[in-house]
Amino acid sequence: MLAIDWGLSSFRAWRLGADGAVTAALTAPRGISLVPPAGYAEALAEVLAPWPGASAEPALLCGMVGSRQGWVEAPYAPCPARAADIAAALIPLPDRPGSFIVPGLSCRNGGVADVMRGEETQILGLLPLLGPGRHTLCLPGTHSKWAVVEDGAIVAFRTAMTGELFALMRRQSTLAPLMPEGKGDDDEAAFAAGVARAAGAGGLTHHLFGIRAATLLGDLRAEAAASFLSGLLIGHEIGSLAAGAGTVHVVGSPGLTDRYARALAAAGHTPVSHGEETAAHGLSAIAASRGML
Amino acid sequence: MLAIDWGLSSFRAWRLGADGAVTAALTAPRGISLVPPAGYAEALAEVLAPWPGASAEPALLCGMVGSRQGWVEAPYAPCPARAADIAAALIPLPDRPGSFIVPGLSCRNGGVADVMRGEETQILGLLPLLGPGRHTLCLPGTHSKWAVVEDGAIVAFRTAMTGELFALMRRQSTLAPLMPEGKGDDDEAAFAAGVARAAGAGGLTHHLFGIRAATLLGDLRAEAAASFLSGLLIGHEIGSLAAGAGTVHVVGSPGLTDRYARALAAAGHTPVSHGEETAAHGLSAIAASRGML
Repeated sequence: MLAIDWGLSSFRAWRLGADGAVTAALTAPRGISLVPPAGYAEALAEVLAPWPGASAEPALLCGMVGSRQGWVEAPYAPCPARAADIAAALIPLPDRPGSFIVPGLSCRNGGVADVMRGEETQILGLLPLLGPGRHTLCLPGTHSKWAVVEDGAIVAFRTAMTGELFALMRRQSTLAPLMPEGKGDDDEAAFAAGVARAAGAGGLTHHLFGIRAATLLGDLRAEAAASFLSGLLIGHEIGSLAAGAGTVHVVGSPGLTDRYARALAAAGHTPVSHGEETAAHGLSAIAASRGML
Repeated sequence: MLAIDWGLSSFRAWRLGADGAVTAALTAPRGISLVPPAGYAEALAEVLAPWPGASAEPALLCGMVGSRQGWVEAPYAPCPARAADIAAALIPLPDRPGSFIVPGLSCRNGGVADVMRGEETQILGLLPLLGPGRHTLCLPGTHSKWAVVEDGAIVAFRTAMTGELFALMRRQSTLAPLMPEGKGDDDEAAFAAGVARAAGAGGLTHHLFGIRAATLLGDLRAEAAASFLSGLLIGHEIGSLAAGAGTVHVVGSPGLTDRYARALAAAGHTPVSHGEETAAHGLSAIAASRGML
């Protein structure tokens, strides 16, 4: 069978053997933002062309492909949620018999709504590695997810718009002209200074303007400003969402988990980094629970 | 003489009598972002055309006209600063004898840089109304300024990028499609809910994503989302920068001071609103100190 993570900007697929193990992997720059509403079946056949016979295999799809603007909308399943709860809430794909869309998750923290779509499979895939008990996970990105899992269930989560705010500030704000494009995104000392600044008084919108003031008064080199901005935003995210976590499991690409690990360590937490391939394992767990394997 | 506040997006001028009182006022949609580097003298003559003889009068100009991308750069004067300190730091306009550019102000809060350019004249203009002692002022806008004045001196200030962040979120973020254009910017209850949310846990970037989650799960009407966003950002600004202030003097347009007054009152502060025309009075005070009047 096929396990597929189809997001706004990217497509990732894995072929799973009868035991649920990954036998092949494939990625394509074909996010759903590039697919017309009626074009999903055709787009899927195209990106799966390297795998002969794949179009006849049952598939389990997660990510924005199940959103309102996706192939078929799969309503959010509520937390707490285990693999079995998600498996029971799968939505059949009408034009592809035996295939299903994975619902995203919703939760309420003190009555305040939050949602995720796709990350739940990465979290489920990591659970066997974590074992029983309560754990805190961080999945950094455009919309970073902070999840609490306990004894195999996703109990609750919170989202921070960190990556999106970075992109807006880096390229479209009044700070953008201060930060030369293609420069200054990998300055470790400036990143650490931004993390430290986040712990100070004044709040995020004050700290953001501080980048402008500091470059105007010569306190911050333009070549270091983008790294400082990254540290500032990640530092604020960790300061607000990691409180009391102790060990934090960070799931993502090596460049991003490395940044988060440094910022978490600076804030007194113990980071443990994991790769992104856990989505395949989570989809495999859901498929097993549904009897697809 | 002429008192002029020439910012990025607007031009405001006042004619002052020998006693420093305003005898006429004029505005034009001709911010410095629309003026080519060598075109300032010509642009000034054009916008002053309604006032015969004005081009021969001495002028005092404040705002972004004194920035690096302005007519002549006027380096920031340090805080604490009184009208006399600013008057002593005026920069002559080479192509307009007897006329000067007002420098902006810089300060350091615990070593952290901040700058303003233009708002210092609004603050100075308000001082005579406030009397002796220590006062907290808030000048909301694209870049809101929070200043502490004491016995006639601007002691220190902090800037928050609130208005700019609102515009980016309202029109260029993933939240933008959730907020119908031209709708929902004046919902008082949603604004108050945003202010209340800002006082809760999780941090600003988490609260911003919450707007998306709340509209997806039906907790927030799309027509109310922009007002909620405004309350959220202003609430965060006040929570971070008004701490311990008690009475806060808010200087700005009526629509904006009204919003800030509501958010300040909700946070237990005592707001006092003032109009924007204080810039003319501040320029008049600087001119008197320099002997231009």
